[in-house]
Amino acid sequence: MATPSDGARTVTARAQRADARRSVEAILGAAVACLARDPEASVVEVAAAAGVGRVTLYSHFKTRADLVDAALVRTVERADQILDGTDTTGDPVEALTRLVASSWQIVDQFRNILLAATRELPAERIRSVHDRILRRIQTLIERGQRTGALRTDLPKRWMLTTVFSLIHAAAEDAAAGRVKVDQASGLITATLVAAFTPPGAMVPAVASGGQRL
Amino acid sequence: MATPSDGARTVTARAQRADARRSVEAILGAAVACLARDPEASVVEVAAAAGVGRVTLYSHFKTRADLVDAALVRTVERADQILDGTDTTGDPVEALTRLVASSWQIVDQFRNILLAATRELPAERIRSVHDRILRRIQTLIERGQRTGALRTDLPKRWMLTTVFSLIHAAAEDAAAGRVKVDQASGLITATLVAAFTPPGAMVPAVASGGQRL
Repeated sequence: MATPSDGARTVTARAQRADARRSVEAILGAAVACLARDPEASVVEVAAAAGVGRVTLYSHFKTRADLVDAALVRTVERADQILDGTDTTGDPVEALTRLVASSWQIVDQFRNILLAATRELPAERIRSVHDRILRRIQTLIERGQRTGALRTDLPKRWMLTTVFSLIHAAAEDAAAGRVKVDQASGLITATLVAAFTPPGAMVPAVASGGQRL
Repeated sequence: MATPSDGARTVTARAQRADARRSVEAILGAAVACLARDPEASVVEVAAAAGVGRVTLYSHFKTRADLVDAALVRTVERADQILDGTDTTGDPVEALTRLVASSWQIVDQFRNILLAATRELPAERIRSVHDRILRRIQTLIERGQRTGALRTDLPKRWMLTTVFSLIHAAAEDAAAGRVKVDQASGLITATLVAAFTPPGAMVPAVASGGQRL
């Protein structure tokens, strides 16, 4: 049975766990904010912004890569929630255009976090963090293939790679000033819609709003 | 006028420079060989393979990133020479298919060096090292646009990004086992040929050898 002193220890342990959770939340929030401003933001800057000491930060995140990873995971979780609001029903080509447009808005907003992740984490890790978002795209591709709107002669996984890598390449291009932010979504869509048109079929013209012309 | 002792110093300095050049060549050759085998190859492994001490290696390459950068530059120089042998005349779509096929063979052969570079260097640096190769592709795209074979409604720079990022994405996919090495070139080509078809035109079917069907 618990003695009073055991009980006091339990309360203390519980308070410490709550403390730790608050620290982690503060650090994560600060990491997302700092990295969104500056992909090179240091661990020291993040600790200062979170109002915790470096020792506390390092007790939760052993390396800068761990911190960037956690910030990416948090950002992609939010992105996935935002994408819940995108209508992916109806004409698959138009739905793909809407999904790309929403994804681009999110990628552009959090572009610096993606750049930080690209510099700090293996490409495979970045892809696997996007798993839920990739599944949204895959579901849409599968539907487009069933209806005949999208080509069926390429493996789904490669089509997924095409979507993922073009959106991320556009983020690099925008960061480097090669592509204008407000044109990127249209470029990605125009490229993907043509890329996924079945051989022998006509490439549809798509308006920037996503409607077939 | 040079005194005999000045002359001796000049001879020594010249010998030292020749020595340094040989060391750099040995280190670069070892770096390309080691990284091609294992993208995680360490500086110590490269020094051992080059038959030089770590101090000598670090006197020429201050960081592992510098070494990977030099290995990438050397590899891309060779790639550019190999691409000299690829016929980019004739039908632009067929020429693009041949250029992609040759590029893929090189990327596949040196895939680990590219992976090492992706982990160690900024994406922009990797792209700028490929400048001469990108210009080959750009020249072909421009010719295809002039003849009407390729779409003109997308900026050339974005079309270049599309080619570059899909070839490199295929390398990641091949490394991760998502794409079979001997199918990658066909997938990239099929995707690009459709992506670059003018809206309103029919996506051509292209054989794996690059001929229009």
